[in-house]
Amino acid sequence: MKHQIYFDNAATTKVDEKVVKEMLPYFSENFGNASSQHDVGIKAKEALERSRRIIAKSIKANTGEIIFTSGGTEANNLALKGLFFSNYPQKNHIITTKIEHDSILNVCKWLESQGAKVTYLDVDKEGFVNLEDIRKAITEKTIVVSIIHGNNEIGTIQDIESIGKLCKEKKVLFHTDACQSFTKFLINVEKQNLDLVTLNAHKIYGPKGVGALYIKDEIKITPLAHGGGHEKKLRSGTENIPGIVGFAKAVEIANEKDVKKMAILRNKLIEGLLKIEDVKLNGPVEDKRLCNNVNVSFNNIEGEAIGGYLENEKIYTSTGSACMSNTLQTSHVLKALGLGPLQSNSSLRISISKYTTEEDVDYFLEKITKVVKKLRSISPLMR
Amino acid sequence: MKHQIYFDNAATTKVDEKVVKEMLPYFSENFGNASSQHDVGIKAKEALERSRRIIAKSIKANTGEIIFTSGGTEANNLALKGLFFSNYPQKNHIITTKIEHDSILNVCKWLESQGAKVTYLDVDKEGFVNLEDIRKAITEKTIVVSIIHGNNEIGTIQDIESIGKLCKEKKVLFHTDACQSFTKFLINVEKQNLDLVTLNAHKIYGPKGVGALYIKDEIKITPLAHGGGHEKKLRSGTENIPGIVGFAKAVEIANEKDVKKMAILRNKLIEGLLKIEDVKLNGPVEDKRLCNNVNVSFNNIEGEAIGGYLENEKIYTSTGSACMSNTLQTSHVLKALGLGPLQSNSSLRISISKYTTEEDVDYFLEKITKVVKKLRSISPLMR
Repeated sequence: MKHQIYFDNAATTKVDEKVVKEMLPYFSENFGNASSQHDVGIKAKEALERSRRIIAKSIKANTGEIIFTSGGTEANNLALKGLFFSNYPQKNHIITTKIEHDSILNVCKWLESQGAKVTYLDVDKEGFVNLEDIRKAITEKTIVVSIIHGNNEIGTIQDIESIGKLCKEKKVLFHTDACQSFTKFLINVEKQNLDLVTLNAHKIYGPKGVGALYIKDEIKITPLAHGGGHEKKLRSGTENIPGIVGFAKAVEIANEKDVKKMAILRNKLIEGLLKIEDVKLNGPVEDKRLCNNVNVSFNNIEGEAIGGYLENEKIYTSTGSACMSNTLQTSHVLKALGLGPLQSNSSLRISISKYTTEEDVDYFLEKITKVVKKLRSISPLMR
Repeated sequence: MKHQIYFDNAATTKVDEKVVKEMLPYFSENFGNASSQHDVGIKAKEALERSRRIIAKSIKANTGEIIFTSGGTEANNLALKGLFFSNYPQKNHIITTKIEHDSILNVCKWLESQGAKVTYLDVDKEGFVNLEDIRKAITEKTIVVSIIHGNNEIGTIQDIESIGKLCKEKKVLFHTDACQSFTKFLINVEKQNLDLVTLNAHKIYGPKGVGALYIKDEIKITPLAHGGGHEKKLRSGTENIPGIVGFAKAVEIANEKDVKKMAILRNKLIEGLLKIEDVKLNGPVEDKRLCNNVNVSFNNIEGEAIGGYLENEKIYTSTGSACMSNTLQTSHVLKALGLGPLQSNSSLRISISKYTTEEDVDYFLEKITKVVKKLRSISPLMR
């Protein structure tokens, strides 16, 4: 049987066995509801609060500033809708970028139907937002600036410390979606002046179905889910204790060594890919890029075709253009970088993990070099 | 070590070992993102759709009518907010009852701040809503009637078939929160004319953090979580595959035999409790009551005190009055039945499970009889 190479870790990761082991007792042994007043409930509550402490500590937040959600999408929804509904109609303006995740962009679109004004900032060719553009966009109606920390498609790491400083100076809130960067890049809510941060578990070898929103203590937001008043009344619903415990374990075992290893393999991948004729890297290099992200455009071939051929070799990557229900949609992120539809559709995202080995990288480079050669030889675009 | 008797299954249940076993491969083996186009993603997608089929079939729905959520609270929020935002301002009226779960009542309260008009119907002494009251409350502005199927505190099973028929006749939508009744009582969306139904996993020996909303095909609702367009664009966010697979397994292994066994033990519990002097059953009997719910008031003693003494014997129950952050709040459900604060605060909920044995019931009855006697002998209220 051929060895499987999973290079789609920006989509989701394999849960670490240590994480699963940590979760297991919370299904059928310590299975209590954290709201129950008796011992069985108290044990669940203790696990909940222990997990909260671990996650808070990892971003230098206070324990009470972490609100657990069902994932990154819910946290992004809670952040923006929550701020909008608690500020509208006094304030109604949101500043974001053109390269956000859909769970920011589609929330903004919906909020526009509810009375919000949204500024979608341009980015430069590497995906960076310009600090002066943010400054100019801020008005007295501005509630929040929401900018993704590490971009999920092209890996661009924004300078959140400078953005945070500006937002503090201008007295507007700053939210960052850190789903891809969490545990890979420094997040320090104090030093970076972060007011709200979206985190999730399944991108960092934790379980699906759990995430968190950091909300600075004094900030008021309207809940997305009303009910029993869980999570400081900000997110009702019985807490997913096994998931939350797994999330905390994933944070606890994350380490600098894995990050460094990934960065080296990422560089090797980029180097190898750029040796192929007519290949272009999308997004920045080195420290300004997520340690596990590579995104390249292959002139004159469809990314889909490359992905398909690689899949035959049990190599799983992702195309820059996300196919939604049979309509080939061009990536809004690559478009924002200035790529035309042809370049955009010829792109491929390779996202590695802490499990990735040098052998995987070598094998991949060997295979993709052949695939590209083959596809170009038959491509109608080459004629 | 003393044997533990967990009688708080209305709060949450122990996950069935078969459910955990079914979930396990989806953490670290078939760990794909169901939106990924490659084989790893397709396997996840297949598990997702297989689970959806199982759950849909169990309530006689079409597969595409099941939308997975993070639990019952989210499903209730999605149902009511989703309907409100897609109907407002043309229609703005919601009809519900005074004995709903907080995730209905607090959603209604918030929607009132957004322009909704809400009718909170009274119930009779056993917790039943009157069909004529519903009929009278319906106006041309009414969007939906939302009534809990099996009440979480007092076990009352509403006649949803008659309510469904009335709603159909009056051309208003009917939503029922079936978190407590699911797999215990017939839910047939066709026969009962149900338009939206809230389901969840952790009350039926499935995992926490997963639930579902049945939404009849032609009904339009506004999503609660916007983003990547998962779940027919109604609920964005990477699907929690292990949780969903576990949910489906819990539904699959649910059976009539367990329900009948629980009903017999429930009756034995009620019978035994009513032998104690001055004890009153809250809610109805036999087929009109959830098979696993008992709720009684003990004249002149605090439910909290009984619960505490039982806990010393490793018997875990729940008090009718939920203590929220140090304020002793009287149960809104018991209040709606006409109980005064004293009666309400003297109540205890005993909710059994399929794991409950006759020995557990006998042991419990022996202990509680002694506890009540002892507490009454020292109660200042008895003087």
